[in-house]
Parts: sequence; C-alpha cells; structure tokens
Amino acid sequence: MSSPASTHRLILKMLKEKQGAYVSGALLAGRLGLTRTGIWKNIRTLRSMGYDIQSHPKEGYRLVSLPDLLLPDEILPELKTAWLGRSYHYFPQIGSTNDHALALAAAGAPHGSAVCAEEQTSGRGRLRREWISSPRLGIYLSILLRTPLPVQEAFQATYILALSLVKVLRGKYGLPGAIKWPNDILIGPRKVGGILTEMQSDQDFTRFLVIGIGINVNHTKEDLAGPFRYPATSLAIERGDPVARRELLITFLERLESDYDTFYSRGFSTFLADLEQFSGILGKYITIVSGKEEKRGKALRFTPEGALILGRDDGTEEAVWVGDVTRVEGTF
Amino acid sequence: MSSPASTHRLILKMLKEKQGAYVSGALLAGRLGLTRTGIWKNIRTLRSMGYDIQSHPKEGYRLVSLPDLLLPDEILPELKTAWLGRSYHYFPQIGSTNDHALALAAAGAPHGSAVCAEEQTSGRGRLRREWISSPRLGIYLSILLRTPLPVQEAFQATYILALSLVKVLRGKYGLPGAIKWPNDILIGPRKVGGILTEMQSDQDFTRFLVIGIGINVNHTKEDLAGPFRYPATSLAIERGDPVARRELLITFLERLESDYDTFYSRGFSTFLADLEQFSGILGKYITIVSGKEEKRGKALRFTPEGALILGRDDGTEEAVWVGDVTRVEGTF
Repeated sequence: MSSPASTHRLILKMLKEKQGAYVSGALLAGRLGLTRTGIWKNIRTLRSMGYDIQSHPKEGYRLVSLPDLLLPDEILPELKTAWLGRSYHYFPQIGSTNDHALALAAAGAPHGSAVCAEEQTSGRGRLRREWISSPRLGIYLSILLRTPLPVQEAFQATYILALSLVKVLRGKYGLPGAIKWPNDILIGPRKVGGILTEMQSDQDFTRFLVIGIGINVNHTKEDLAGPFRYPATSLAIERGDPVARRELLITFLERLESDYDTFYSRGFSTFLADLEQFSGILGKYITIVSGKEEKRGKALRFTPEGALILGRDDGTEEAVWVGDVTRVEGTF
Repeated sequence: MSSPASTHRLILKMLKEKQGAYVSGALLAGRLGLTRTGIWKNIRTLRSMGYDIQSHPKEGYRLVSLPDLLLPDEILPELKTAWLGRSYHYFPQIGSTNDHALALAAAGAPHGSAVCAEEQTSGRGRLRREWISSPRLGIYLSILLRTPLPVQEAFQATYILALSLVKVLRGKYGLPGAIKWPNDILIGPRKVGGILTEMQSDQDFTRFLVIGIGINVNHTKEDLAGPFRYPATSLAIERGDPVARRELLITFLERLESDYDTFYSRGFSTFLADLEQFSGILGKYITIVSGKEEKRGKALRFTPEGALILGRDDGTEEAVWVGDVTRVEGTF
C-alpha cells in the first residue's frame, strides 16, 4: 500500500518518464493498485501544487510543464549535498523563513536544515527592516547551522553565504555580483539579495545560527518599483530573461555546502581574497551608521577576521565590525 | 473572598507583626472570614514552604523563625529595584535557572525578569560544564536583560554582574572578592561564584541576554569537597559564620540594577578601573585555552572594550576576547 503522499510522487515520476507524452489512467491505476477515481484525486493534488497536467478522455494524462516551484519533489532529487538542505521544509507562503527556522532550531532540527518559501508575508531584513517577498518570483531561504563558532566571529558566516551567492551569480549566470558590506548582494549599484543572520550563543560560542537569504530572481522592473532604501534589481532584469529558480537554489545550496565546509575546517582567512575581490565598497568613500554613530572614510581592506578597515581623512585607520553602509561615494 | 494564595500571605503578615508571639486561631479565622480548619490548611501550606510555625491548642500560632529561603514573600517586599527582579520566578528545585529564563524570554517575559531556585538538578556552567547546586545553600539566579547590546560587546554584561557581586562581597561582607577572567568570582585562590551568559541576537545586536550566576553561600568545607576543577569556597567558610541568603540576594539585585543602568547609559569604559582593580589575574602569568589554542603570557591590562591584553614572552601583545584561564602562575 502506498501512502497518499508517496502515491502522487509515483504518479509524477511516471508522468515525467513519458517526457510530455500521455499515460493512460488505466495504466496508472493498474500500476499503483488504485481506482481511476483515486488516480484523478492524486492528479488534482499535483495540479494544486502547481504541476500543469493535461487530461484527455481517451489518452489519459500528460505533464505539460514542470512548475518553477521550489517544491521538495523538484529540489531534493537533484540536490547533491551531504548535509545542507537534506532536511528541507517547504512553504507556498510563510510569515518569515527565519522565524520558522528559529523555531525548528529550538525543536532540535539538524545542522543544515533549510526552510524555503515561495512567499513571505512578514519577511524581515536586518535591523528589523521589512523585506519585500513577492510570490514565486524570488528565493526566500533560511538555513540552520549548528557548527559552534566563536561569538566574535559568527558574522563571518554571513560573508560565506554572500560569497557563495556572488560566485553563483558570476559563474553560472555571468552577472557581476558584489558584496555591499556587510550583508547585501549587489549587481552594479542595485541590490539583488540580502542576508539576515540570527543566532543563539553563550558568551563564547554559538549554539546555532539561522541565516536567511532573500534573492530577487524573476522580478520585473515593475515588481521592484516600490519605495526601497536602495535601487533593486533581479537576475531576470539583469539577464533580460527569466531564470529557473529551482536551478539557482540547487546550485547555491551545493556551492554553499562546499564553501561552508572549507570555512569551518580551514578558517575564514581562506576567503579573505574572495571577500576583497568581490567587495562592492573597497577603495570607495563610504558612510557607515553603527548604532547612533556615523563613520565616514575610505574602505581600505579587511582584517583576516573580516572587520572592515576604514581610513579616516586624518590618516588614521579604524576597524569596524558592525554597521550599515548608508552611502557609497557617488553611487546612492 | 481571598484567593488561597493571598490568604496564606495575609496569615504570614499577621504572624510577622506579632514578632514571635502567639495569635489565636479564632482571631485569624475571624479576620479572614475562614473556618479554623481553613486557617489550619493555610498554616500547613506555610510550613511546607519552610516557615517554622508553632501551634498551641489554646494560644494559637506563632512564627518561630523565618526560613532563609528565597521565596517571593521574603524577597519582593524588601527589594528596592525599579525593574530588576520585579518579575520574580521562584522554584524550590529546578533543572537549570538559565534554561527556564531562556524559555521565559521566548515567551515574552519583561526586561529584568529573575529566575531563582533553591536547588538546580542540572545546573550548567560555561562550556557546558556541570555546576553543583546544593539545596538551600547557594543562590542560583538567572536574569533576563532585553537592552540591545552590540553582539561584539555583549560579554561586557558578564563583567558587570561579576563586578556587582565583587562589590557586594567587599562592601557588605568584608571579603576580598576578585574576578578570574572572564566569568568566575574568587575569594583568594578559591572560587565562590560563576557566571553563565547566553543570548539571542542578530548579526548586530542582542535580542536578549540571559545571565545566570551561582554563588556558594552557606556551604561547609565538606559540602565543597567534591572533585572540582578549582578549589571552591563559600561566604560562610570565609566569614566563619552563615550568611542570610535573602539579604545577599536583595543587596546583589539592588547593586546590579544600579550598575547595569550606569553601564547601559554611560558605556563599559565607566567600569574599566573597577575591572582592573578587582581582577584576580592582572600582573600574573597565565595560560588561556581558547578553542584548540593555548595562549601563555602575562595579563597586562584590559582594553576599553574589555578585551584582555596578554603580554607574550617575545614582548608582543595580544588582545584576547574569548577563553578560559586554566592556570595562574603558582596559584592553581
């Protein structure tokens, strides 16, 4: 006996094998030991998940197109990772993927658990800012990392995610991604993604990190016309063509698992050259707001721990760990 | 009509007013509108809470002695604080006060909430070490702090608690308390208290801190004969006399509220002189274990942010943020 959940998976598998050709309802019913009404109910389930399935009174059923949805059935069979995303929590709509991942963390979910949603209704950005999450256009992903990191260095994990995304943008999509310190991803002067890191720790080490990333993928210029703090863009706008979110998500998770393993075993300094190469602010004159303080200076380089060295007008230098770049010379 | 909880409080208040003299059961019953059996049930409740109440067939009831327990009824009427401990959660026995405070934090408990227990059955020290919590001999307290602190500087709050305790030990009890960096409180070479800080944060600021403190108060040498990592002592051992835990707790909470307000409004540097004055390691040759690394050198001073400056044999200096002092020259 198949459970209902695995029955629709088996039907989907048979439809996919036919590559768009019809499969008769009788064949499906015979193979799965179901009535034709049972098959019909499962087809209805698949349609409600977003699969475009055509039915024909004589020919049966055929899969017209795969939905570009981040469904477990579309992600997990393709995903070649050892630990990242193996526990995959999918939501057509959710309040905030980070909130859900924090709750999973408290409930004991394993290292590498991923929460992925087609839409967030109360997505949060850094410093409790709102993050716009349009349905089925972006990727809204939070991952749970249980590797203990010294509290002082936990922010390095944010850079690792940002670098993984930049490398995927450059390598797979030919887009000049860059990091706006500390947690935004730009293409040119426009923001294409943002990262929100949350954690629980004792005074020495993190217990867990939840890192959320939002990526604008198939948004049009009209979708992004809202009153944003910075001009926004998407992969589709930059490439002039829609992008399969499924492929982007899988590629990103695989890249990130590899990068994070390297970071955790060999340390952050391994990524220092990448950070400097892909920084969107080095060499520029910037304004950083950190709490009530405002700091201005030239972004010179990063320390091996990842702090930003700011060169002041009087020639002195300062290492900045926390802050928010509000202006980059001539750009915003 | 009085609720049962407030009825025993009213009886206790009447007994206390008599300062050890008898109050007749008839008087209590008349005042509170209860039967004499109702009074008897409430007396039984008070006894089960630790109050020593004598009964006499003709005279009635008298309060022989106040228990040295950290009951809300013994703490809250005396406690002169604005926010610290105003929400006070008391347990005769609990697994871990920090775990309970973390759960309260998640449930939205207010800034300054305190969790206090007579005994912990699975008390935790730093780096997941066990912390021995003997029943009714020590103070096992966790407090919830909701003031946002930069993640990099959150450890400063641990110092503030340590300094408050050291000042109470010195000021009220005449004991030469000192801080063994970063989170132990010593009297001479022996440990009298330890602090465990836990927090939830985003990459910039803490959402909340839970700081737990364990203090050995009325332990005898026999109580502390266990196989500890460091030699242990208690206030009673050092003074040669038991100490009222109630008074110690109230004095500590009042001192801490004042110190924490100063810290939060004026910054950590206000406490730098205190930290150096009451440090048990400055000027000494120490070994610090931090993760897999072992660092040796002379503890020279603290930075204004509270990092320890270690002077190496080759004359170079290093700022240490995280670690565990495993040896102090000639002491352990």
